[in-house]
Amino acid sequence: MQTYKAPVRDIRFSLETMGYDKIANFSQFEDYDIDTLMSIVEEAGKFCTNEMLPTNSAADQEGVHYNPETMEVTTPKGFKELWAKFREGEFAAMPHPVEYGGHGAPMTLAFIMSELSTATNKSFSMCPGLTQGLVDALIHWGSDEQKKTYLPPLISCEYTGTMCLTEPQCGTDLGLLTTKAEPIEGRDAYSLTGTKIWITFGEHDLTENIVHLVLARLPDAPEGIRGISTFIVPKILENGERNPIYCGGLEHKMGIHASPTCVMNLEGAEGYLVGEPHKGMKVMFTMMNAARLSVGIEGIALSEISYQTALAFAKDRTQMRALDPAKRDPNAKADNILVHPDVRRMLLNVKASTEGMRALSSWVAVNIDVGVNHPDEAVRQEANDIVALFTPIVKSYCTERGFWNVSEAMQVCGGSGYTTDWCIEQYLRDMRIALIYEGTNHIQALDLIGRKLPAKGGRAMMAFNKQITEFIRSNKDDESMAPFVNPVKEASKLLSDITMKTLMAKAAKDPEEGGAVASNYLNLFALTAIGYLLGQQAKVAMQREGKFYTTKLKTIRFYMENILPEVHSLAAIIKAGKANMMAFEVDEF
Amino acid sequence: MQTYKAPVRDIRFSLETMGYDKIANFSQFEDYDIDTLMSIVEEAGKFCTNEMLPTNSAADQEGVHYNPETMEVTTPKGFKELWAKFREGEFAAMPHPVEYGGHGAPMTLAFIMSELSTATNKSFSMCPGLTQGLVDALIHWGSDEQKKTYLPPLISCEYTGTMCLTEPQCGTDLGLLTTKAEPIEGRDAYSLTGTKIWITFGEHDLTENIVHLVLARLPDAPEGIRGISTFIVPKILENGERNPIYCGGLEHKMGIHASPTCVMNLEGAEGYLVGEPHKGMKVMFTMMNAARLSVGIEGIALSEISYQTALAFAKDRTQMRALDPAKRDPNAKADNILVHPDVRRMLLNVKASTEGMRALSSWVAVNIDVGVNHPDEAVRQEANDIVALFTPIVKSYCTERGFWNVSEAMQVCGGSGYTTDWCIEQYLRDMRIALIYEGTNHIQALDLIGRKLPAKGGRAMMAFNKQITEFIRSNKDDESMAPFVNPVKEASKLLSDITMKTLMAKAAKDPEEGGAVASNYLNLFALTAIGYLLGQQAKVAMQREGKFYTTKLKTIRFYMENILPEVHSLAAIIKAGKANMMAFEVDEF
Repeated sequence: MQTYKAPVRDIRFSLETMGYDKIANFSQFEDYDIDTLMSIVEEAGKFCTNEMLPTNSAADQEGVHYNPETMEVTTPKGFKELWAKFREGEFAAMPHPVEYGGHGAPMTLAFIMSELSTATNKSFSMCPGLTQGLVDALIHWGSDEQKKTYLPPLISCEYTGTMCLTEPQCGTDLGLLTTKAEPIEGRDAYSLTGTKIWITFGEHDLTENIVHLVLARLPDAPEGIRGISTFIVPKILENGERNPIYCGGLEHKMGIHASPTCVMNLEGAEGYLVGEPHKGMKVMFTMMNAARLSVGIEGIALSEISYQTALAFAKDRTQMRALDPAKRDPNAKADNILVHPDVRRMLLNVKASTEGMRALSSWVAVNIDVGVNHPDEAVRQEANDIVALFTPIVKSYCTERGFWNVSEAMQVCGGSGYTTDWCIEQYLRDMRIALIYEGTNHIQALDLIGRKLPAKGGRAMMAFNKQITEFIRSNKDDESMAPFVNPVKEASKLLSDITMKTLMAKAAKDPEEGGAVASNYLNLFALTAIGYLLGQQAKVAMQREGKFYTTKLKTIRFYMENILPEVHSLAAIIKAGKANMMAFEVDEF
Repeated sequence: MQTYKAPVRDIRFSLETMGYDKIANFSQFEDYDIDTLMSIVEEAGKFCTNEMLPTNSAADQEGVHYNPETMEVTTPKGFKELWAKFREGEFAAMPHPVEYGGHGAPMTLAFIMSELSTATNKSFSMCPGLTQGLVDALIHWGSDEQKKTYLPPLISCEYTGTMCLTEPQCGTDLGLLTTKAEPIEGRDAYSLTGTKIWITFGEHDLTENIVHLVLARLPDAPEGIRGISTFIVPKILENGERNPIYCGGLEHKMGIHASPTCVMNLEGAEGYLVGEPHKGMKVMFTMMNAARLSVGIEGIALSEISYQTALAFAKDRTQMRALDPAKRDPNAKADNILVHPDVRRMLLNVKASTEGMRALSSWVAVNIDVGVNHPDEAVRQEANDIVALFTPIVKSYCTERGFWNVSEAMQVCGGSGYTTDWCIEQYLRDMRIALIYEGTNHIQALDLIGRKLPAKGGRAMMAFNKQITEFIRSNKDDESMAPFVNPVKEASKLLSDITMKTLMAKAAKDPEEGGAVASNYLNLFALTAIGYLLGQQAKVAMQREGKFYTTKLKTIRFYMENILPEVHSLAAIIKAGKANMMAFEVDEF
């Protein structure tokens, strides 16, 4: 049972309440007012439902094929045709510069489209997703020649892109990487040798050429991450020759079966330096930051399609009588399961958190565009601060909650949910990797507490605190807002206390304290921030009329009463600190 | 990477602290003192590691095969040989009566062995697991002739057993079932017609004969669950003829690929009534209650093997430097990941909760034997009350936490955890069904609040409260016990308050209030009960010497500070009640 309809109404409301009007006012985005934007989203949604979704389940079951003799990878049936249609629809070109064949739309649109495409075909979507990351990196760091050569075919989907970071001995710890890049005499090129693992779409049959962004060390490189450089390594060189970067095999994984995860062997492959020598981490992070947001959005995407699937199941299923006799159907032996409080609770756990995460990701996405394009530097700075602070939060919280949500949606369907018939089991398998890749969730938490919080004297956090405080203050006399303000006030007090007493006081002196509490702190932060954004949405919803808004208010109330209270446990656990885990000797585990 | 060693030390400690000495004193168990019992467990553990585990991953990848022409099911390579060895080891015979070929061991042993076998091969273990349920049902409800005919071959594993409940239109709601049983004239037998689904090992090639326990309606049956009778339906009749109960197909599932989940068509199959007409639910519940405990133990089993696997990964992996410079290995570029607080936190989340759940399940298992065999009726009654009260809690909480634990263990392994190489992804897929089958977890919660709590005027809950109160009282002056008593006191206060104010007051008047809070209440109950049992273990551990006990105290402290605090969120969510979920119209989902 594959069912999906793009949640355009909720996306629109998220954008309206999270500041899309600011972007629409920029002269470069004058063609992208909210109505136009939403008509594009509507079209994209139809494409996803009609073209992407029908291949999703069969592709999962078929998987990808590796031929050890030719070292070629064949994608599942239908992917080539789907790629052709995707290319024709110019979906990937939307947010990129017009001069390289893009359509100059706001980046916000790219994140919305990434939700729709991930929901309907996560494996397939990873290919354009990574390509977009490479495009971003080249726009920022490529030479004019590199831009001219690679951007047009990447933006038009004639080529695809990859990110080659991990090696067997290093994932999180890139300082340990050993792939070598040696200058080729007399040419502005390098010869790269080494082995990369976990390269998504590192080899495939969708396009003739693949452009790899490879991290490697120059001969004179310092040790550690300060000695890493970035190179473009195309599969097919400009002279038409095959560059010796070969797929040595595929990983066998729990999910994303239709996305080839490749071992890539560089056997003296020709590459071109991007950016400055030894400054490769900067290039990598340009690619990585957008990727991290997209990965967070995977949690929203798979929550949404799982919710829609579970709801379709629930609406169709009758079982047991309603607990309230007044709600029993006198003409039936059993009632529709939506009468049961717990079925509602499970569905609303998914619905309310998904809409909350969408508010958060929309807010961050809008701030990306504001941070790049706003004429006022102070506004740009605050927007960029928000993006930096919340990128690890979106990546980690939305994937963790997303996995939980898909599991909750499965539970609604009972035994059927566990079978392949209802597809939720695939969404659950596909979802799980998102807690790991693009920096494990704990790495996000360390990024939050170690880099993002203390950056510029804690400027970002202070700005965010000011926003919440203002929200609480300005609504304190509005009684109708109390159910949406009081829980946020309470959560925000816990967050502030812990930020001051645990993070700034204890953890600043003892990094192990920080490491011990970071993951729970990130979730506490996420829950509070989402509560705040939903509180703002409640304010708007109350001023409008119509069913969408009354439902939205109920959904937000559910969030405040059923999801936000998790802050209490998190706070208690954080306060206990590191001692209980650091007390163990290695042989006591 | 398949790795497993039976946790005999922790099992022994659980039994010692949870009252196994009471059982060992019963004359019928004089051959099963704790040392003897543990030597059996040790042997069983070796069998599981050496014979069951090596087939587990390959069997998952191969799956089971169905031949639509012969309607036969073939199990994966190695299962027939494994079945022969399992049979030879007489593992299934241990807890059953000597007169039918059993060894008369305490039931407690059966639950321990079910942990070991599930950990090492869940799919395979489901077959003897269900067979044991059928044996229990026949011992309780079968006629002397039925016992003589079926018990010996079932206990010796010459036959296997199934439980045929579910039909397409009814899973949770058995009152809707329609399979018919019509008397065969002139014989003490019935002709059964209908379709059953989700029948585990309903058809297979491990044994010649399969004995099905089938729920069906007699011609004069009242509607609903008061009109259900239970029948033995053997695949091969005593005269050697094939009984027309055929496998019509297999389900395609997320996990337990090596366990055939069959559609079973009864086409006038011959069956024999077990127990009284229309009283089939009683027979079913005898089978179901033991099955529910075993399913709960699946959560412990897969938590344990996932923990051991993640620990093996962690001990081998170096990545990043220790946050504390004093802990850095000066001869390496990266430190073992066990130096990182968050890796410890994740591992201990699994370890501490697994050991806590093992204390709980051991306590319930011991009480099963006490409830059956203790000479004093008052003691038997209290033991049976505890078993009844905690059966739904073990089933629901241990499976929910078990699934979470396996996912947490996967996270320790990073990307490797997502590949099939480390097997945790299989454990996660295999685990997920346990939250659904043998009564979904919410059905357990409804059983807890609707039947078990109010039974006999709340006698069971009062007895349990008395135990906790006594634990708190008797330790209140022991300062060294404070870290293990105070958190339990706080949790138990929340539990009591909510039991009184929400369950007994609000929910008793309004069943929807009960339905809305039941699942969270069950978890609150489980966390508190485990806290109490671990508190008792702490008391014992403090009085003993040796590394096992100092580690145990650290582990219990971790539970109190990192796991038990979840009660705070649960209590807050429960207090909000039903309004937030019942406010939604059907078209607002």
